Amino acid sequence: MLPVEVLEKVQAQMLSYGNTGQSVMEMSHRSKEYLQIYNQAEKDMRDILGIPSHYKILNLQGGATLQFSAIPLNLLGQNANKKCDYVVTGQWSEKSYVEAKKYGDPLAVLDTKTSKYTTIPDQSNWNTRSDASYLYYCDNETVNGVEFQFVPESNGVPLISDMSSNFMSRSIDINKHAVIYAGVQKNLGPAGNTVVIIDEKFLGGKTEHPMTPVYCSWDTQYKAQSMYNTPSCFAIYVMGLYLDYTKQKGGLSYWETLSKKKSDLLYSAIDNSDGFYSAPVHKSCRSRMNVPFVIQEGNEELEKKFLDDATKAGFVNLAGHRSVGGLRASLYNGMPVDGVEKLVTFMQQFQETHSS
Amino acid sequence: MLPVEVLEKVQAQMLSYGNTGQSVMEMSHRSKEYLQIYNQAEKDMRDILGIPSHYKILNLQGGATLQFSAIPLNLLGQNANKKCDYVVTGQWSEKSYVEAKKYGDPLAVLDTKTSKYTTIPDQSNWNTRSDASYLYYCDNETVNGVEFQFVPESNGVPLISDMSSNFMSRSIDINKHAVIYAGVQKNLGPAGNTVVIIDEKFLGGKTEHPMTPVYCSWDTQYKAQSMYNTPSCFAIYVMGLYLDYTKQKGGLSYWETLSKKKSDLLYSAIDNSDGFYSAPVHKSCRSRMNVPFVIQEGNEELEKKFLDDATKAGFVNLAGHRSVGGLRASLYNGMPVDGVEKLVTFMQQFQETHSS
Repeated sequence: MLPVEVLEKVQAQMLSYGNTGQSVMEMSHRSKEYLQIYNQAEKDMRDILGIPSHYKILNLQGGATLQFSAIPLNLLGQNANKKCDYVVTGQWSEKSYVEAKKYGDPLAVLDTKTSKYTTIPDQSNWNTRSDASYLYYCDNETVNGVEFQFVPESNGVPLISDMSSNFMSRSIDINKHAVIYAGVQKNLGPAGNTVVIIDEKFLGGKTEHPMTPVYCSWDTQYKAQSMYNTPSCFAIYVMGLYLDYTKQKGGLSYWETLSKKKSDLLYSAIDNSDGFYSAPVHKSCRSRMNVPFVIQEGNEELEKKFLDDATKAGFVNLAGHRSVGGLRASLYNGMPVDGVEKLVTFMQQFQETHSS
Repeated sequence: MLPVEVLEKVQAQMLSYGNTGQSVMEMSHRSKEYLQIYNQAEKDMRDILGIPSHYKILNLQGGATLQFSAIPLNLLGQNANKKCDYVVTGQWSEKSYVEAKKYGDPLAVLDTKTSKYTTIPDQSNWNTRSDASYLYYCDNETVNGVEFQFVPESNGVPLISDMSSNFMSRSIDINKHAVIYAGVQKNLGPAGNTVVIIDEKFLGGKTEHPMTPVYCSWDTQYKAQSMYNTPSCFAIYVMGLYLDYTKQKGGLSYWETLSKKKSDLLYSAIDNSDGFYSAPVHKSCRSRMNVPFVIQEGNEELEKKFLDDATKAGFVNLAGHRSVGGLRASLYNGMPVDGVEKLVTFMQQFQETHSS
């Protein structure tokens, strides 16, 4: 969901952006007008997230999935050590780990036998390698509802983070990272643009694999200001409006406060349901964005009834991912607090009717 | 430029698509509503271009540039012959040829010493290899203004074509091709979506390179209906509206007729200027989309004056690409006939004032 104020601005500017007589969809990406939109969006992102100037920002197509490949391609080529460590805490980091096998020697550093993606083991138990080229983690796992509440200590190993699903929902300790990237469609705009924030030390192409598709070369894209070819102009423009809206609302703390409020509301309702509802993820790493839960420890019949009743009451998309089942509520920036309050009320009523 | 009718529809549906209460930008790409938009766009494209059912259609991000890599990655891996032939007729096919060097053994089949990208030599002079894995050409070169007026005879070698800049401007002999692809931002919508039309014989992954980024795997994307991850939903939606508009206007012949009319107008003006204006590209391969021309065989001072006066008169983007200089007019589908008529009048007036 996007703020209605953002949609209304897009609507008002659809036939003519400012007094240009052109829709943003019609602008050349090299026109003065479009470059202004692009540069303002970058500036606003830097301001809001406090991105230091030695971090460069790319805006690329292909989603987080293309970055799953771009990360090892840019960091494990030529003279680089092929070792790379992956903290696999859910479906997305697992996909990224599997992709890295094409290009290097990735290691999943958690003992997966002890975890069904419901917890993040203490870092003292991670099998990280001090000579790895990078350490990778997914800050928030959408399917499994596992979110880091800390930045992993990588002891000098470059740290890479996929923040696709909790980007722009809380402050980020940029300086601890070599690369942070995020498809922006969850919290910051329509699908079609992925933000990649890179410490300039990792540009220059020194560790780029010779088989890197030119589109995926961070160094090439940086030198071309993310315009080696035509970028996803319209998605970047809407992202810019969303950033502007965020600034007007007071910045990142606006979304951070709302995220905490919404997730507290929902987890409290679950925790105070006398076990009718339960959340499988350990409290230390519960996601503020995606809340998986079950009814009566996995009563599928009742869960199906819940989904049916919820749909009738206007709550959609509450089914858990087909790979994990159960139920799941998503609380991205676009979801208003009163939407969560109504969901909690619905859940309480459902419990009253069906608890035996 | 997009038809104003398309922009108005986007505007009207911005806050709520149909009675969904949602903007298309907010829809899940797996929702019933979005899949309907997606499937209708595919159906309309099949109808308009007459795409046979054994050709599959992908909608991918990353532009033509990502396909420059995807083509050798999907066709030159594993058990494939690494030989691939490139008809280099301008800047874009040259980039594609250079990219292929990362993955195989590409050969530029034209003798470039005889061509400054102003002609396409007779096919009897091409150094094609009968055992190449594919033969590649760019149907229209935007920078150089060179357009094929025939489909190359590949004698059984799979034929690949980049139609990014003249897609949807004339009929295509699909069956002669293994793969046709086009970034749609020139003639069919906003940037952010690339259509890849593939003969199903080339799916299945048998010739896929093991280092192919999963995003670039045609087979993976086909099996996932181009939704291995979130597609560029909004760009696809606008493309769908553009296709619908095309159908209402009578189909492909509508654009084909207009393209011919517009380019005939402009080339006639150039050819009938007593040499004041001249077009460097050979008549047999003049582009209907991009018309490069010079004044007094390259009088740079007068060309600069032309550009200044043109800008004042409201004609923008008439400078030739920085790599070739001179002047260039683009006549994509969005450019109306009366826009070309006005340009021709302006050119005639400029000539009257400045011819000595």
